[in-house]
Amino acid sequence: MATIKDVARMAGVSVATVSRVINNSPKASQTSRELVLKAMGELNYHPNANARALAHQSTETLGLVVADVSDPFFGTMVKAVEQVAQASGKFLLIGNGYHDANKEKLVIEQLIRHRCSGLVVHAKMLPDAELIQMMEYVPGMVLINRILPGYESRCVALDDRYGAWLATRHLIHEGHRKIGFLCSNHLISDSHDRQQGYLDALTEHGITPDERLIARASPDEEGGEAAMTELLSRGSQMTAVVCYNDPMAAGALSVLSDNGIEVPQELSLIGFDDVLISRYLRPRLTTVRYPVVAMATQAAELAIALSTGAELPPTTHMFSPTLVRRHSVRSLP
Amino acid sequence: MATIKDVARMAGVSVATVSRVINNSPKASQTSRELVLKAMGELNYHPNANARALAHQSTETLGLVVADVSDPFFGTMVKAVEQVAQASGKFLLIGNGYHDANKEKLVIEQLIRHRCSGLVVHAKMLPDAELIQMMEYVPGMVLINRILPGYESRCVALDDRYGAWLATRHLIHEGHRKIGFLCSNHLISDSHDRQQGYLDALTEHGITPDERLIARASPDEEGGEAAMTELLSRGSQMTAVVCYNDPMAAGALSVLSDNGIEVPQELSLIGFDDVLISRYLRPRLTTVRYPVVAMATQAAELAIALSTGAELPPTTHMFSPTLVRRHSVRSLP
Repeated sequence: MATIKDVARMAGVSVATVSRVINNSPKASQTSRELVLKAMGELNYHPNANARALAHQSTETLGLVVADVSDPFFGTMVKAVEQVAQASGKFLLIGNGYHDANKEKLVIEQLIRHRCSGLVVHAKMLPDAELIQMMEYVPGMVLINRILPGYESRCVALDDRYGAWLATRHLIHEGHRKIGFLCSNHLISDSHDRQQGYLDALTEHGITPDERLIARASPDEEGGEAAMTELLSRGSQMTAVVCYNDPMAAGALSVLSDNGIEVPQELSLIGFDDVLISRYLRPRLTTVRYPVVAMATQAAELAIALSTGAELPPTTHMFSPTLVRRHSVRSLP
Repeated sequence: MATIKDVARMAGVSVATVSRVINNSPKASQTSRELVLKAMGELNYHPNANARALAHQSTETLGLVVADVSDPFFGTMVKAVEQVAQASGKFLLIGNGYHDANKEKLVIEQLIRHRCSGLVVHAKMLPDAELIQMMEYVPGMVLINRILPGYESRCVALDDRYGAWLATRHLIHEGHRKIGFLCSNHLISDSHDRQQGYLDALTEHGITPDERLIARASPDEEGGEAAMTELLSRGSQMTAVVCYNDPMAAGALSVLSDNGIEVPQELSLIGFDDVLISRYLRPRLTTVRYPVVAMATQAAELAIALSTGAELPPTTHMFSPTLVRRHSVRSLP
């Protein structure tokens, strides 16, 4: 394998000059730059990112932890963070925590060991105390979708409770009073907060919440099928259902269609997140928009600024969801 | 920041002993292992992966290039490769090529510079010659969804032509003869091969292909909407349409629904890939299954074996797609 010395020899310049060209130093002349790049090409020489990282005590690398990239919600988050990384000339390292505290810890540690100076972390299972230790160790670490007490300025989150309140209030305004809720069975703040927003809206409007109208399952299409089936089999007389997220709504729609229950004529349905699928379901899904691109962009910019000591960008630490009205909710007379 | 010397001092052992513990050497005693791990914990010391990578001249890292992780097809690929990486104790580095030759080249080079000894690469735009140079430089590099002449044993691909032939023949067997095709406008082998399979099946059954029944657009939901709209506005009298992939079929369904055209009663539709969305569309989409998990798993196992010099696993280099019958195709009398 070619070394930097081979490149210097072939280019007829010093090793220091090759190093200047590799690091884009303005001290390298145009002539030596051309000679060096030509030699690097002919020798198939790739500067060693590890060696450079060690020398600089930091890397060109931004780290990102999500729960699961194969979930379209996180796919969108990855894309937004990568665009910020690219614009800053950084390379993105991605790891999955898979909704598991041990895996979250392992993947964050791996990214730290790879000397990611900036980190955007979506980790909902790790206890506060462990996250605090990591936040102290890595000044460029930023949390997304979680508020860590004492570190609010390094967190970007969504007001989930308000979002579910918005969805439920919309149904109430359209005349619904028997409103079900398909909840996530993950023991994380998102599940708790969205359920609380649903309950808030009911009680605010004088409707007594009914445990029999709430079903819990995994926050995906299959979970939506299971939870909707459970509500139907309980014989609950609902006219509308709030779903924890859009994939659960897609699963619910599938079960309703199989049972010949028309949406929205017989049952109104509302989702959460506004992922792409919500526009291609039939009827098009009314939902609550999670501004994931804006949030991920700000989190990535904040992580890079914190890790490089640059001036901090203006950041919204708590985002508000908004309602997206499509065709899955009907007004009751 | 704590150094290895600090750890040695606090543990009361030599730096060499700390190094042995970090590298899981059998020469480290249980007592010194406990002392060192305790000191590492108290000092919050993380061994530097970069330094270890340099020392070992290879890393614990497997690299993966996809076109775009936010596309569910690639999300599934990432998840499958990551599972192999985890099982082998490797950490996965992911980069996006975004259907652009320059970006593909850049991201592969970045992964090489990060000393990924194993690489799974989905790159459709880079010319053969450039890929060959990289394949020569990195013996652990494997291509997915592409056959590079001369390197067939390091490629895992799908018989796209056969898949589209299968879809089209299914429609012909169900009595259809006026069959449209929504094609991808990407200039890659997938587009060419799937169109060729469609044409093969037509001519084999004595049906003269008609350019006016083919529309091209981006291979996603929006492209499906555009291409379907184009076919409809041409007044083409089709009874069935083959779609380049499932997202295009989702877009087509959306346009058909808006135009009051019932699927499959008035028009039959068939997709390709069998991504999750195809099960949640209404009607459920009949499609061609792309065995992406099996293919990505084999590609990752092959890359790791090639990069570590282990015995090569049995590998299917050319996979065959299969038909998945759901409810979007109707038999003509």
